[in-house]
Amino acid sequence: MTANPPQGSPRIVLAMGERTRRELLPPALVDRLRAAGVVEPDVLVQDFSDPQHTARLATVDVLLTGWGAPRIDNTALARMPRLSAVVHGAGSVKELVDRRVFERGIVVSSAVTANAVPVAEFTFAAIIFAAKRVNHFVRVFREQRTGNALHMPVTGVGAYGLTIGVVGASRIGRRLITLLHSLDVHILLADPTIDAESAAGLGVELTELDDLLRRSDIVTVHAPNLPQTHHLLDARRLALMRDGVTLINTSRGTLVDTAALMPELLSGRLEAVLDVTDPQPPAVDSPLFDLPNVLLTPHIAGSLGNEVARLGELAVTEIERLSAGLPLEHAVHVSDMDRIA
Amino acid sequence: MTANPPQGSPRIVLAMGERTRRELLPPALVDRLRAAGVVEPDVLVQDFSDPQHTARLATVDVLLTGWGAPRIDNTALARMPRLSAVVHGAGSVKELVDRRVFERGIVVSSAVTANAVPVAEFTFAAIIFAAKRVNHFVRVFREQRTGNALHMPVTGVGAYGLTIGVVGASRIGRRLITLLHSLDVHILLADPTIDAESAAGLGVELTELDDLLRRSDIVTVHAPNLPQTHHLLDARRLALMRDGVTLINTSRGTLVDTAALMPELLSGRLEAVLDVTDPQPPAVDSPLFDLPNVLLTPHIAGSLGNEVARLGELAVTEIERLSAGLPLEHAVHVSDMDRIA
Repeated sequence: MTANPPQGSPRIVLAMGERTRRELLPPALVDRLRAAGVVEPDVLVQDFSDPQHTARLATVDVLLTGWGAPRIDNTALARMPRLSAVVHGAGSVKELVDRRVFERGIVVSSAVTANAVPVAEFTFAAIIFAAKRVNHFVRVFREQRTGNALHMPVTGVGAYGLTIGVVGASRIGRRLITLLHSLDVHILLADPTIDAESAAGLGVELTELDDLLRRSDIVTVHAPNLPQTHHLLDARRLALMRDGVTLINTSRGTLVDTAALMPELLSGRLEAVLDVTDPQPPAVDSPLFDLPNVLLTPHIAGSLGNEVARLGELAVTEIERLSAGLPLEHAVHVSDMDRIA
Repeated sequence: MTANPPQGSPRIVLAMGERTRRELLPPALVDRLRAAGVVEPDVLVQDFSDPQHTARLATVDVLLTGWGAPRIDNTALARMPRLSAVVHGAGSVKELVDRRVFERGIVVSSAVTANAVPVAEFTFAAIIFAAKRVNHFVRVFREQRTGNALHMPVTGVGAYGLTIGVVGASRIGRRLITLLHSLDVHILLADPTIDAESAAGLGVELTELDDLLRRSDIVTVHAPNLPQTHHLLDARRLALMRDGVTLINTSRGTLVDTAALMPELLSGRLEAVLDVTDPQPPAVDSPLFDLPNVLLTPHIAGSLGNEVARLGELAVTEIERLSAGLPLEHAVHVSDMDRIA
């Protein structure tokens, strides 16, 4: 059975949390949604079995989902016989859609491309600040209450000519690489799914992960969260990194073996910018909260505050395309499900 | 009297401090200098009246200067009858060269363009981190030792759709604007020396300073340090800025009236990233060192550490051009002397 893409005035139902709706759909986007189909923007489905939504789900063509949406499983699908599109105003759809959704021919869209933007921007800023040793200077200035860095001898400071190691040519990794081209740096990329030609197209040097770790001044991880990437940076690989190197993780905490990273940070041999950790958040007595060589943030690199509206913009544009009979620009296929984070 | 530009194998003399030479001229650049002319890379002139340098100065064609170089005044010029070029491996030449240098027809080059690069990069990273309220999240996470921003309600966070106010289309301001075009932001520019056509070419909206201050989410100052820009941001203008706005100053401390800024920071109404202050450094008991809404750095935005070699690269390339009979690419003219910072 293949659902027909909705055209004309599809019936659109929102499935997400209240806070998500407020951030995802500012008034201008609600207006565009109303123009694209029939929608009740104040009704939020958070449980597909809730009897107050039975009639609504019986006629829904397009589900606009966001954080807080319930999982679309077999039981949910049975309540939505006309459903032909799931447009997700957030990143990964891995937890949202069952394979049955694809099997029924329902098209699925994700805002993972828009979600990559703030992560790449945060990581880029973190690279510049890490290269400049900003945290070090802030702390020393606060302690000494005098001085001027332009008259202090400094080594290992500055981004000029650095080698930046990007682990994973994910959407975020690729967007970060684009930003890095505005710096005078050499970019190494490790990604087993990329060939030399693609790497050349990205303007980076493709290499093995171990070589990247040995050569980079700053290492940033953007690999997918898969069984084979669990503890991708383990004790052996962390030991390959040179003294004073900064490790940045804005991806998933489990990509790094935290137990192996801790002694490297406690000794001061490595520096880190950690927006994700394993466990997350760290235990309340974790030294990560206080180490001077660690910038620890509570999972803020992704879309936050006004950045959520960028996801909404993408999702509403997708729904407008469906209404106009155009294919999705950000379709997720069942074949993607094994390799997405 | 007009000096002829040196060609072939000019006699090159270095005038700078020892630390400057080490950072400015890594071995590869020393090799290029040797190829471009006759040079003693280990001899550093720090006093033109030092008798050990008399013979050397009598035949010098090109002075390669850097931080720590003595001022080139009338007396110094009299010791260098063949001098035809001053190539400064640093920013402003205002304190370095007397007007007599230009009057004698000596060509002058400055690395101010290369020096703009790290300042623009630092400012760009500061804008991303300020928009994301990184310092706030770091502090709250450290205090609470739990939480996940993706599940916290946040307002006023994120760079998407922000209005960024750039005060001054200096080299740094222009380079920053180029970087800002990689973000989804609206850019306002205030600069009395720029016309609408130039502003359109820069991809920004030109406006008056007061209007810029009223409309911007983040304001960054890149105006030259002139009598008419002293306290450009005074109490009246700071009051125009909306609550929660971040003021960034990586330029000169005196562009902002610190006495007027302090109550705005102490009340928490404004935030600030201050790489320069007035006085600089702040008094040891200044609240600037400890305020949670201030990121205070000890004048690190400019070329520091490895970034100094970018200045050296520019300067050596200029000397290579002179040797090849080509004009300077980064010439400073006497008419520039009144408006450079």
